[in-house]
Amino acid sequence: MSDDPLVLFMPSGKRGRFPKGTTILDAARQLGVYVESVCGGRATCGRCQIEVQEGQFAKHKITSSRDHISKVGPREARYAEKRAMPAGRRLSCSATVEGDLVIDVPQDAVINAQVVRKDADTRIIERRPAMHLCYVEVEEPDMHRPLGDLDRLKAALQKDWGFGRMEVDAHLLAQVQGILRAGQWAVTAAVHQDAEDDIARLVALWPGLKNEAYGLACDIGSTTIAMHLVSLLSGRVVASAGASNPQIRFGEDLMSRVSYVMMNPDGREAMTRAVRQEISKLVQKVADDGGIERHDILDAVFVANPIMHHLFLGIDPTELGGAPFALAVSGAVKLKADDLRLKLNPGARTYLLPCIAGHVGADASAVTLAEGPHRQDEMMLIVDVGTNAEIVLGNRARVVAASSPTGPAFEGAEISAGQRAAPGAIERVRIDRETLAPRYRVIGCDLWSDEPGFAEALGETGVTGICGSGIIEVIAEMYLSGIISEDGVVNGALAETNPRIIAEGRTFSYVLKESGPRLTVTQNDVRAIQLAKAALYAGIRLLMEKQAVATVDTIRFAGAFGSFIDPLYAMVLGLIPDCDPDRVSAVGNAAGTGARMALLNRDHRREIEETVKLIEKIETALEPKFQEHFVHAMALPNKIDAFPRLAERVTLPPRQLADAQNGDGEARPRRRSREERAARRRRD
Amino acid sequence: MSDDPLVLFMPSGKRGRFPKGTTILDAARQLGVYVESVCGGRATCGRCQIEVQEGQFAKHKITSSRDHISKVGPREARYAEKRAMPAGRRLSCSATVEGDLVIDVPQDAVINAQVVRKDADTRIIERRPAMHLCYVEVEEPDMHRPLGDLDRLKAALQKDWGFGRMEVDAHLLAQVQGILRAGQWAVTAAVHQDAEDDIARLVALWPGLKNEAYGLACDIGSTTIAMHLVSLLSGRVVASAGASNPQIRFGEDLMSRVSYVMMNPDGREAMTRAVRQEISKLVQKVADDGGIERHDILDAVFVANPIMHHLFLGIDPTELGGAPFALAVSGAVKLKADDLRLKLNPGARTYLLPCIAGHVGADASAVTLAEGPHRQDEMMLIVDVGTNAEIVLGNRARVVAASSPTGPAFEGAEISAGQRAAPGAIERVRIDRETLAPRYRVIGCDLWSDEPGFAEALGETGVTGICGSGIIEVIAEMYLSGIISEDGVVNGALAETNPRIIAEGRTFSYVLKESGPRLTVTQNDVRAIQLAKAALYAGIRLLMEKQAVATVDTIRFAGAFGSFIDPLYAMVLGLIPDCDPDRVSAVGNAAGTGARMALLNRDHRREIEETVKLIEKIETALEPKFQEHFVHAMALPNKIDAFPRLAERVTLPPRQLADAQNGDGEARPRRRSREERAARRRRD
Repeated sequence: MSDDPLVLFMPSGKRGRFPKGTTILDAARQLGVYVESVCGGRATCGRCQIEVQEGQFAKHKITSSRDHISKVGPREARYAEKRAMPAGRRLSCSATVEGDLVIDVPQDAVINAQVVRKDADTRIIERRPAMHLCYVEVEEPDMHRPLGDLDRLKAALQKDWGFGRMEVDAHLLAQVQGILRAGQWAVTAAVHQDAEDDIARLVALWPGLKNEAYGLACDIGSTTIAMHLVSLLSGRVVASAGASNPQIRFGEDLMSRVSYVMMNPDGREAMTRAVRQEISKLVQKVADDGGIERHDILDAVFVANPIMHHLFLGIDPTELGGAPFALAVSGAVKLKADDLRLKLNPGARTYLLPCIAGHVGADASAVTLAEGPHRQDEMMLIVDVGTNAEIVLGNRARVVAASSPTGPAFEGAEISAGQRAAPGAIERVRIDRETLAPRYRVIGCDLWSDEPGFAEALGETGVTGICGSGIIEVIAEMYLSGIISEDGVVNGALAETNPRIIAEGRTFSYVLKESGPRLTVTQNDVRAIQLAKAALYAGIRLLMEKQAVATVDTIRFAGAFGSFIDPLYAMVLGLIPDCDPDRVSAVGNAAGTGARMALLNRDHRREIEETVKLIEKIETALEPKFQEHFVHAMALPNKIDAFPRLAERVTLPPRQLADAQNGDGEARPRRRSREERAARRRRD
Repeated sequence: MSDDPLVLFMPSGKRGRFPKGTTILDAARQLGVYVESVCGGRATCGRCQIEVQEGQFAKHKITSSRDHISKVGPREARYAEKRAMPAGRRLSCSATVEGDLVIDVPQDAVINAQVVRKDADTRIIERRPAMHLCYVEVEEPDMHRPLGDLDRLKAALQKDWGFGRMEVDAHLLAQVQGILRAGQWAVTAAVHQDAEDDIARLVALWPGLKNEAYGLACDIGSTTIAMHLVSLLSGRVVASAGASNPQIRFGEDLMSRVSYVMMNPDGREAMTRAVRQEISKLVQKVADDGGIERHDILDAVFVANPIMHHLFLGIDPTELGGAPFALAVSGAVKLKADDLRLKLNPGARTYLLPCIAGHVGADASAVTLAEGPHRQDEMMLIVDVGTNAEIVLGNRARVVAASSPTGPAFEGAEISAGQRAAPGAIERVRIDRETLAPRYRVIGCDLWSDEPGFAEALGETGVTGICGSGIIEVIAEMYLSGIISEDGVVNGALAETNPRIIAEGRTFSYVLKESGPRLTVTQNDVRAIQLAKAALYAGIRLLMEKQAVATVDTIRFAGAFGSFIDPLYAMVLGLIPDCDPDRVSAVGNAAGTGARMALLNRDHRREIEETVKLIEKIETALEPKFQEHFVHAMALPNKIDAFPRLAERVTLPPRQLADAQNGDGEARPRRRSREERAARRRRD
């Protein structure tokens, strides 16, 4: 064993011995530890900052001390003088190994970063971006060695940065000459290399030292588009913005947009244009908010469900409207931003995560990447509820995925008093087990309806309806209070003794709010939620069967809906299987987080590409047992499945023995009939 | 050693043993012998034809017989029935090895080829194009394996054609779906892979079997643009066309075009647009002549001198107008045809050969590739005479190159009676050694001027001037007749005895034609040719010095000028060094041939890229000995160099001993002063 000092890098844990005098940056590179550097070791960009962790690290048998790193030299001092360097930080390109060291590579480095926004998930993402900034000094032209300007630039990049063969974006050919001269032969190049074995591509060039570059992470939802502007160098989110998807004017839900394309010759084109224009506006907004120019944006990652994905790419989504739900492209898509008319830097690139299947898109891939069931051993269930619910279940050994046609009930549609989550909507409900009187909370107001000052706090908005999480809670509470049976039937007998239960035609309703306006939960509302949750649960059960598990270890609710519902009530209703309630959590815009991960680290792109190839897709419509699971799941929480861990927290009503009441014949998954309609339309 | 039959492929000479039953196509592929195939071995495209050479091949110890190849099977018979297959031809995808064989891979296969034109060099070029047509049958979509259409297409291409990772052109994303369905899941893909280690790119797609694709080979000269349309599958030239370079309206010669750019803000753009538009017209012309559509053109190779190269690419050529003559890009340039607004197939690619130096362009590279000094042992001199002469000298061991500023005298400019090579121009001249009376031949007329019927044959055109080759001959004959001295001085004493010599001011002229109009060769004309040829010869001598050779083995004249001059007269004048006249040849549009080679065989691209890296460039202006060689070369044929092999054919006048008469001080290379002017202009 060599006597050279031992250097351990955190958080990666990679370690190695290096001769005294080796720069920390060189040591990191030799171990494959990614440390950002633009200036190539000239101590001018300040991107390569590290910290020495002092102390005895018994586990690693290292005693690390600041005495084991070289003293601050003149170059480093010059940088520290010009720019405020946080205490304890060193430039790894200048500081050298002089003894055993534990080196912390701060992943949250904010050197030169602009205003930092907190809207996005603040998780730290290890960086290894596909787009590098590389400062080089290029040889001047020489008649004796008549290599072209571009060729000498390439040679400098190859020599200083270790690139092999390089290619060059067409638009740079005519500019290289002028930029080299403007920078007096010192320039910063943006080099794109998405994969280890890609030929490196020179995609942008600036005179002198360019010390910042940005990327976009964008989630194109059916309803809203969310965008983050991210520093490719520090990894921080600099600005965030959201907008409605303007395609809504062509159709509220996905299937109606597919129909629009089928019915209108230029429908596809109009929707592609609409979504690209809106994204372009968002680019301008985040650029303005971040105080940068559009051409400072060099990379962009997009995630979307399959239909949004296809429309954004200009692909006809009609095939996704009927069996076999064939994607035009399922793998990751790499394009120039120009190919999508995005007007970023002319050399900017885009990356779209792979789709898993015709109903499980790049957004589900991104959620998977963010939550990482494939990175751990526990059986993790991820549920992203929208008009379709995407469900992913798995662990390191195996991941399976499905989509379930829940319909829009969870979003407040098809519910008599339903509305979108907005001020005035009831979001929390409790029902007194004796009196059956409700109390509730409304979005935009911190008080419960039975607390003093509620009416005043509510103000002019009033109570306007019930949003998705409110519907979950009120129906769960109705079940827990005995207002509805396990089969979801409103107990009409109660109408005789309690004014909260009223007859409406041949069925009964529960009066949640008596007047101004009156809000009731009808038998039909209960049925709609039963159908939606039964579809979701049946999908989950199919996946659990594929995995041959009776329970799951953790549950992650992704998306906006998931952020607001109470896991306990979701379990009471039987949306999700029994699970320790403490291990059920909402993960917010996990799709956006996955997009940021793919933006900041090309290894994550490979990770999700490989993972998606291995994910087994279950097409619920083709599974014979789906119907059976669906019927059982119509009951609250379920006809046959037990919820022991839920029962430890909540007193569940005793089970009935009678069969589920499915008299109206509606207890069928929704998509089946849609498919048939689409197929029929295509045959005509 | 195995007992398997031995198979030898011609012309490559590659050989190997293969088990009986191996298809000839598989055997060829295993040996790396390129045999075209579009249908991937389905016996439908007919591209993989080969012939069995029968007989005893003692050198190879093979007895090859048609009995050693399998009988025609049903698939092959079906193809032969539908299409006329030449006698003796077999489909290598269907015929199998059954004994020892010598297989000829015909490089001139004309299967399905359109009209064949003979305008281009008819040399056979071995094919291994960067652009492949690949027929595949793609799996239909399957809900259980939800891979996208494009992903299944890629998988089929990888499986049947052995491509590794593949990428896809953006414009295809939205089309793949429709094309796969139009072809009922059978399609032909165009896959571009310029280098062995490039990631293969899907660039075009057609439903069903597409059995023909085309490429362009184009030489962009300062004066004319020449284009060939070539079948990428058979290698044959299908159509050829030429046009004047419309940039002539911005300036006749290269330096005046550079000046135009320097003086006019939008000059560069106007010239780029002009040349691209003209090229686009030529594309339409060759497509029409070949009976094909523009979108059937998938690849295009361009060669040009450095200034044309830069202007075509949209690069400012100003730097090329002054020392250090810095090219913006010297290496090979690979672009999409769309980047150059060429409107070929949307997936078409272009390739520009590398430039050697600021004055030695991609055209010189192409000439080098075509003539191949680096492929042989003899010392080969290649001369391409234009306004600049490009000179390449070398063999397998070493190649050196230079450019010499000959000026436009050889093209008839700066000559009092000079004109372009066109009907009416004198192109051949003989002078009676006694009477000093001339006889001549004129372009467009087969008779000599002293033959009966000359005037009638000449018709209305008459005799209008002297073209380049005519000037070479008349001055060489004047020297051989004693009219001018070794130093180029017209002997005024002759004026007293011979009316052909007349005084004009202080010098004397030779009357080539007495009237209608009178055409004379003046002292200034002689001086202009002396200056031009001295510059050329001095450049050649520098290269010979670099190679440390006193003589060259072969001389190749490239370009139009070279096609018309008589090598013997070129030697009498001392344009080129002494050489066996039988080993001096004109090679026509060698640049165009080099472009075709690069189009049809990507290995030739690598060959010229590697060769150019090794070519040593001599900047004549920087060589101290240039001036000395130049002064010696002012004499006819040369002040000090001997021409023994020339003297065996031609009686040369005895040498004088006096110094060259350079009284007018013009005996200086032309470019030097231009450079100074340009440099001065830039300083201002």
